[in-house]
Amino acid sequence: MAITVVGSVAFDSIETPAGKRERCLGGAATYFSLSASFFTQVRVIAVVGDDFGRRQQAVFDVRNIDTQGIEHTAGKSFFWEGSYLENLNEAKTHITDLNVFATFEPKIPDAYRDSDFLFLANIDPVLQRRVREAMPDVKLVAGDTMNYWIKGHRPALLEVLKGLDILLINDTEVKMLASNNNLVQAARAVMAMGPRLLVVKHGEYGATLFHGSTTAEGSEHTFRAPALPLEEVVDPTGAGDSFAGGFFGYLAAQPRLTPASFRHAMFYGSVMGSFACERFGTERLQALTREEIDTRFKQFRELTHLD
Amino acid sequence: MAITVVGSVAFDSIETPAGKRERCLGGAATYFSLSASFFTQVRVIAVVGDDFGRRQQAVFDVRNIDTQGIEHTAGKSFFWEGSYLENLNEAKTHITDLNVFATFEPKIPDAYRDSDFLFLANIDPVLQRRVREAMPDVKLVAGDTMNYWIKGHRPALLEVLKGLDILLINDTEVKMLASNNNLVQAARAVMAMGPRLLVVKHGEYGATLFHGSTTAEGSEHTFRAPALPLEEVVDPTGAGDSFAGGFFGYLAAQPRLTPASFRHAMFYGSVMGSFACERFGTERLQALTREEIDTRFKQFRELTHLD
Repeated sequence: MAITVVGSVAFDSIETPAGKRERCLGGAATYFSLSASFFTQVRVIAVVGDDFGRRQQAVFDVRNIDTQGIEHTAGKSFFWEGSYLENLNEAKTHITDLNVFATFEPKIPDAYRDSDFLFLANIDPVLQRRVREAMPDVKLVAGDTMNYWIKGHRPALLEVLKGLDILLINDTEVKMLASNNNLVQAARAVMAMGPRLLVVKHGEYGATLFHGSTTAEGSEHTFRAPALPLEEVVDPTGAGDSFAGGFFGYLAAQPRLTPASFRHAMFYGSVMGSFACERFGTERLQALTREEIDTRFKQFRELTHLD
Repeated sequence: MAITVVGSVAFDSIETPAGKRERCLGGAATYFSLSASFFTQVRVIAVVGDDFGRRQQAVFDVRNIDTQGIEHTAGKSFFWEGSYLENLNEAKTHITDLNVFATFEPKIPDAYRDSDFLFLANIDPVLQRRVREAMPDVKLVAGDTMNYWIKGHRPALLEVLKGLDILLINDTEVKMLASNNNLVQAARAVMAMGPRLLVVKHGEYGATLFHGSTTAEGSEHTFRAPALPLEEVVDPTGAGDSFAGGFFGYLAAQPRLTPASFRHAMFYGSVMGSFACERFGTERLQALTREEIDTRFKQFRELTHLD
């Protein structure tokens, strides 16, 4: 089943201990859709400027991603510059230029309206809510957010959470959103805000899925997927969005959703996140094959399973 | 098969967000032996002062731990005071009084000499080496250390590492020991110093076992055990030693050691570490049953296994 994703398509300048890249294609919607495209049909809603040309378009075309919802407008695309020189787990932002994104009014192409899955990537919660309300018939809605919206746009974000089935955020964010430093307690508080499923990403330590009412004993309603211990993390940019793409893309491809589907989805999320880190920007996702994905899935099983 | 452990038996004063305890029984050898005693016969080598009385002795006796190697001497036992008010993952040390430990000369009772397994808990590497050399016929030797010895006693520590089959340390320590911030690279460097197996503990994120030559792809020679997401971490003191006790105790109880034994041992280590955190000091380990251990082992399997 098709996924519609709304989010940023951007240019990123990135510096990591492994090197530098200037103005490579980035943005949450870009990473998400490249990653999910290995599992299902993906449709993107975003806005770009004059600097988004044939080379950038080709990255989506090669993966057969529907881009009729990417609006082209005068001006420059969203630009982000950041580095990971001291800490590979957390970007230091140098520049955020919203550019054409500052006045973005998401428009949903008619051809997208039969999408069964909707992903609200990390953008202004006011926009997330607008897209959610414009697509009332979707079967499953997942979303992401970040510390900036949690701190400064809480009321709008809380409205978005009410309309989500699944929220994917990181450790720091779930604790900030719940004002609680215990992961299990914070997860329960966030699920009470709307989403019935919560995926908490732990960076190099994997991710935890919380579902249903978490008990004191914990594990009955949780599932942990590992991350692959990597010899070299070249660039962690987009790892979280790639995780979301693998997770949600896998779910969208299933004939029906069982508890086992969600466990497998967690593994596919981790698999896609691990690939994203291996090269700068979207380079690794662009060069990836489904066979490599399945091989790594097996590695993840060996990494964690007793027998 | 019996395990001989050398390490500290101490009194700890601990403050955590959950409360305070004054002078409760602690020390690496105490946590290790209580934990391992659920799996196999344990024999302790340590030194205590006049303050170690019948109540403390009873804690070992109840678990049928052989304490004839605990030397009683005039003076006070090792005392540690610390808190975890800001960060549950890292203790802030207020007081370390070595007391009778300052002049400790480990003596190995004759009855311990047929031990097949030896655990060198976190003490001065000079003492660790002396015990290792006094027991040349053991089949498997594991050990622990800490940042203090890595920073200030490196040559003595490197001598100990040469005589170890398995080293169990945490994330920060393995990176410090290898002077390398990448976990996989650091693990390889530390294994080149002696131990053919390395267990890296990640606190609330579980632990990773590295064995053999780690490849660029990683997972073929690694295994990740999760930690249980806990509703409340009452007191993390001794969690790492309890992990080591579960890990090494399980191994010592196996008729032969296969790759699967080590994976199961990692899970039992995580299980015992999770129990240790649930109450202050050794309280939870003292009240534990083998049935609870097996129930939690099953929870860990459900927490991580796809099917």
